[in-house]
Amino acid sequence: MNCKSNNEKPLILVVNDDGYEAKGLEAMLTIAKPLGEVVVVVPDRTRSGMGHAITMSEPLRLINYKNEDGISYYKTNGTPVDCVKLGEKVVLRDRKIDLVLSGINHGSNSSISVIYSGTMAAAIEATFDNIPSIGLSLQDYSSNADFTAAVHFGKPIVEKVLANGLPPYTCLNVNVPKEPVESIKGIKITRQCLGVWHEDLVERTDPYGHKYYWLTGHLDRHELSEDTCEWALHNHYVSVQPVQFDMTAHEHIEKLKFLEL
Amino acid sequence: MNCKSNNEKPLILVVNDDGYEAKGLEAMLTIAKPLGEVVVVVPDRTRSGMGHAITMSEPLRLINYKNEDGISYYKTNGTPVDCVKLGEKVVLRDRKIDLVLSGINHGSNSSISVIYSGTMAAAIEATFDNIPSIGLSLQDYSSNADFTAAVHFGKPIVEKVLANGLPPYTCLNVNVPKEPVESIKGIKITRQCLGVWHEDLVERTDPYGHKYYWLTGHLDRHELSEDTCEWALHNHYVSVQPVQFDMTAHEHIEKLKFLEL
Repeated sequence: MNCKSNNEKPLILVVNDDGYEAKGLEAMLTIAKPLGEVVVVVPDRTRSGMGHAITMSEPLRLINYKNEDGISYYKTNGTPVDCVKLGEKVVLRDRKIDLVLSGINHGSNSSISVIYSGTMAAAIEATFDNIPSIGLSLQDYSSNADFTAAVHFGKPIVEKVLANGLPPYTCLNVNVPKEPVESIKGIKITRQCLGVWHEDLVERTDPYGHKYYWLTGHLDRHELSEDTCEWALHNHYVSVQPVQFDMTAHEHIEKLKFLEL
Repeated sequence: MNCKSNNEKPLILVVNDDGYEAKGLEAMLTIAKPLGEVVVVVPDRTRSGMGHAITMSEPLRLINYKNEDGISYYKTNGTPVDCVKLGEKVVLRDRKIDLVLSGINHGSNSSISVIYSGTMAAAIEATFDNIPSIGLSLQDYSSNADFTAAVHFGKPIVEKVLANGLPPYTCLNVNVPKEPVESIKGIKITRQCLGVWHEDLVERTDPYGHKYYWLTGHLDRHELSEDTCEWALHNHYVSVQPVQFDMTAHEHIEKLKFLEL
């Protein structure tokens, strides 16, 4: 665990994937502001579904668009993962960051969405440098979502992580159901359920007669065991999933030895 | 294992992240062409480092740009993951795909690069629908790389996977060292080593006096155990890593129970 052992004010980097104008960013700042020195680095527009994308084919811009209440706000043309890299290397110039907070995302990032999510990719990126991080998401895609429950349940999780740290190279994927605070039963530590998006590619024709497609879809849950993220959300609990970045299918290494030469 | 049990010609979807003009695509087709019915869906430009990004904020275009030697070629403005979705749902309209091949990538995708890589994200996307898939990468970023060794060692792996299938929801991350065939010692089944990119953000100033940054960096290997991808590549072996998509840090679930409410 990487807990803060002295009396300095913790340094907190806040990022998101919904961009600098998102209501969820303001909600996250109500959690972060009282806890330490806060710096914001966010995309200059919505960058949902960016996964772990980084920007290599064009230069990154970084604009200090606001300084208010002791918080410095930066926006970039980059992805959520670029926000973490720019925050660490350019804005904070390798100062020790105590916590990265990503979100609060408009829309849940449970199940397989952890892999498509820019919010979670940014949190995972922080773990590469062993910085404790939390992706916080509300199960409500609306731009005008009510973040009361996400702040209510997110705040003690953030405080406990600041106080106790997290296991090495691990972040948290926190998902809050779209419900009033009173009807949420509590917080469960969960694992990622087996579930995948079932795509619909909606076909349209432009005024020039050319076809195009809108990517849409719905989550197919292949299991709803009691220890999973989706069970928690469907049963009025906040889901807190520890996330790591080893993609190896360890259990299949032995049975693939037939491919060796 | 999902092996082909009848005498039909296997249906193979070929995707990549380097785009329709990449030399690595032609190299992959020399492997795929003799093995079945082949359909190509690739980006209309280089989309390296796109991770698991999908396109939701703009419509997807899909152009059938060539039909040659029985192969249909499509290009799209989408990401590598979009290529898989468009291939499955629009081009092949839910026909059963026997194998997805992604690459051959210009540049290796070992260690943590599996998470940044569009090539590997496309292979992983196929596993969501339980389609056996292989991401094949050559440790040479050059646009004019020599793919001889990648084809030489990739071909038997692809053939064995077509014949035997892969474990459910698993794909392969195959990385070939930049060496002549003769100096490569063989093929090793490996796990992802602990290694991360150390970023450099190179600062420049545009003619208007505004700063911008180029994202670059180098891989910091934190371990080089004999069972890892990086050990294999550095010791003249092809690395074959089985990849899965459960991001849960299972070993830390119990110790995080203090966050429950």
